[in-house]
This record gives sequence, C-alpha cells and structure tokens, in this order.
Amino acid sequence: MRILIIGATGTIGAPLVAALAQHDLVLASRERAAEQVDLGDPASIRELYRRVGRVDAVVSAAGAARFAPLQALSDEDFAFSLGNKLMGQVNLVRFGMDAVSDGGSFTLTSGVLAQQPMPGSAAISLVNAGVEGFVRAAALELPRGQRVNVVSPPWVSETLVSMGQDPAGGLPAADVARAYLRSIDGDETGSVISPERMR
Amino acid sequence: MRILIIGATGTIGAPLVAALAQHDLVLASRERAAEQVDLGDPASIRELYRRVGRVDAVVSAAGAARFAPLQALSDEDFAFSLGNKLMGQVNLVRFGMDAVSDGGSFTLTSGVLAQQPMPGSAAISLVNAGVEGFVRAAALELPRGQRVNVVSPPWVSETLVSMGQDPAGGLPAADVARAYLRSIDGDETGSVISPERMR
Repeated sequence: MRILIIGATGTIGAPLVAALAQHDLVLASRERAAEQVDLGDPASIRELYRRVGRVDAVVSAAGAARFAPLQALSDEDFAFSLGNKLMGQVNLVRFGMDAVSDGGSFTLTSGVLAQQPMPGSAAISLVNAGVEGFVRAAALELPRGQRVNVVSPPWVSETLVSMGQDPAGGLPAADVARAYLRSIDGDETGSVISPERMR
Repeated sequence: MRILIIGATGTIGAPLVAALAQHDLVLASRERAAEQVDLGDPASIRELYRRVGRVDAVVSAAGAARFAPLQALSDEDFAFSLGNKLMGQVNLVRFGMDAVSDGGSFTLTSGVLAQQPMPGSAAISLVNAGVEGFVRAAALELPRGQRVNVVSPPWVSETLVSMGQDPAGGLPAADVARAYLRSIDGDETGSVISPERMR
C-alpha cells in the first residue's frame, strides 16, 4: 500500500511509521518530514494532495488545539483549535477523497478528553468530540468503498514522561500505534477506536 | 427565576416558553422575539448579555448548521455551521458566566445526529458532538456553582410534519421541552440529556 502519514515525526507518528515500514510511505508533518503541511491552512492541505497523488490510505496523527482554563481560553484559542485539529482533519477527508484509491481509508485522531474531560480541556474536548461526530457521519457518504475511522488515544506514556509524570498512567506510543493499523488493515468504518481496549 | 431563552419562537422554544410561564422570562431569537441576537456573531451575544443583565438560567434552543451531501458541503457551509450552532452556543456560556447568578445554569441544544448520523449530516453531526464535548468539559470549570447541560433532541414530531413525514417517527415538541426543565430545575451538570428517555 501507498500510505500518506501526517504527523509522521510525532510521539504517535514515529512508532506508527516503524510499524508500517513494509509499505510505501509518504511522510508529512508541519516542519520536519519530507512533505510539509499546515493543517490549519486549507490551501496547504489541497497542495499536499496535489503533490502526493494517488494513495491507498491517509493517516493523521496530527492536529493542535489549545489547553487552558475555561475563562482564559480566548476567541483566538477556539478559532485556532477549530481551524487546526478539527477542520484540518475534516479537510484531510474532504480534500482527499479524489486522491484515495477505491476501498482506501482515512484514519484521524481524537483523544480521550472527548469523553473524559479535565479542567483546561474545554477547547480540546470540543475538538476531539467534533472529529468523532464528523467521522461517524462521513463514513456514510465516502465514495468508492472508502472508509474513515478515528483513533482516540488515551494519555501516552512518552507524553507523561515529557510532562514529568508517571508513565504507568498512560499507554506506550507503540501500543497506541497498533490502533491505527486496525483501521488501515481492517474493514470497519465510522468507528471510534480506543487503543486501550486492544491490550 | 429569571430565565433567558434563546430561540424562544422556535419549534422547541415555543412549548418551552409555555412550560416555564411561571418564571420571569426574557425571550430572545434572531428576529421575532423581544431581544434579538445572532448566534453567529460574538459581538451580538456580548451585547445581548449587556442588555439583559442578571439571570438565573440561560437556555438555548437555537443554532443553525448546514445539511447537505458530504461532497456538496463547502468551506463556507462548515464555517457557517461551526460559527453558529457550535461556537454560538459555546459563546453563550463563555460570555454569560458573569451574567448568571450563583448556582444558575446553562442549557444548550445538540441533537440525535451527534451519535446517529444520516447521509447529509456531516457538518451537523460534527457540530452537535462538539457542543456535547464542550459541555462535558466546561461543567468542570464554571464558577460559583453554575451548571451546564445539553439536551440532545431526537426528531421532533412537528418538524417531521413540516417535512411531510410521519410524526410518529418523532417526539412531540412539548415532550422535548420537558428535558430542558430537568436541566434548569435539577442539580446535574455536564450531562447530555436525551428527551426520549423521559417518557
């Protein structure tokens, strides 16, 4: 398969690239991969697809959203979060339908805060839940047997370490990456896939 | 109680106003109520709160989003939907915290398409799920004992009639309105309330 991976250099993206190494991979990220794309800029996503051409799967382990106390989140914080992790991933599907082969797949990323919020997560919880709502609906209308799923990662051990916290409270990134393989290789569509349930 | 109702003249808003008639009601809608507000315009929401002053509850039975086939939904359709039903209702909470009394409540509206999509609902499903994700998170951070819930109406009988369909497939608007009373009068917060479960 030819697979486009956005967020290829990230905490989840890096082990995902390793797990998919037998395929023809096109690596994209905001700055550090061969193909550069800004999820917050629709034109940048359209140009990425023009450069890359036909692929069998698109995987997004990318997208930024702002974490801050509810009363500190500004209009701009919400606009940035909705424009990047939410509409950026929605646009990967909208603009990618022509590029993906018959029966190909999209796999997006939400996160546990969609369903299990914490103080400071109002914008991120909105964005993650919105991505999930979009995926459930878009799955009904994709052309030519295409599928779309969303992986909802729990806290990732490597992220917790970088925050100075106990990694035992999270799941190793390599385990999280396996959830993306299930979406790419399987036949399900419209699913919210929780990596922790795969252990 | 002094209650601000946005969408007061709508299919759900009208029976809700009737059910709350014993209270001091401030009725708002885009055009036909005493107080006019455009949910898609943050400045309009801020001005509404400045005019209305202190209230004990804010109820939104309002918000527009676009229904169209996935491949026909334009960038503008998504921008409109996110700006109106999603960020319009989010902004009712963000800009209303200072106006709502201690222990007061916000009640927003999502809809069954958040969890049970249909072809054409991609933008609406995104918006409804996003509102629910925001409400779950914002409930953790509202000041002074304030609460926030979201009612997720099923298809409303009166709406089905207006579409020339069998009203038996929906729930009467008066029954849907009762779910808002549960949010206003109860003590729950961060809940997604489904009217059909109250019969």
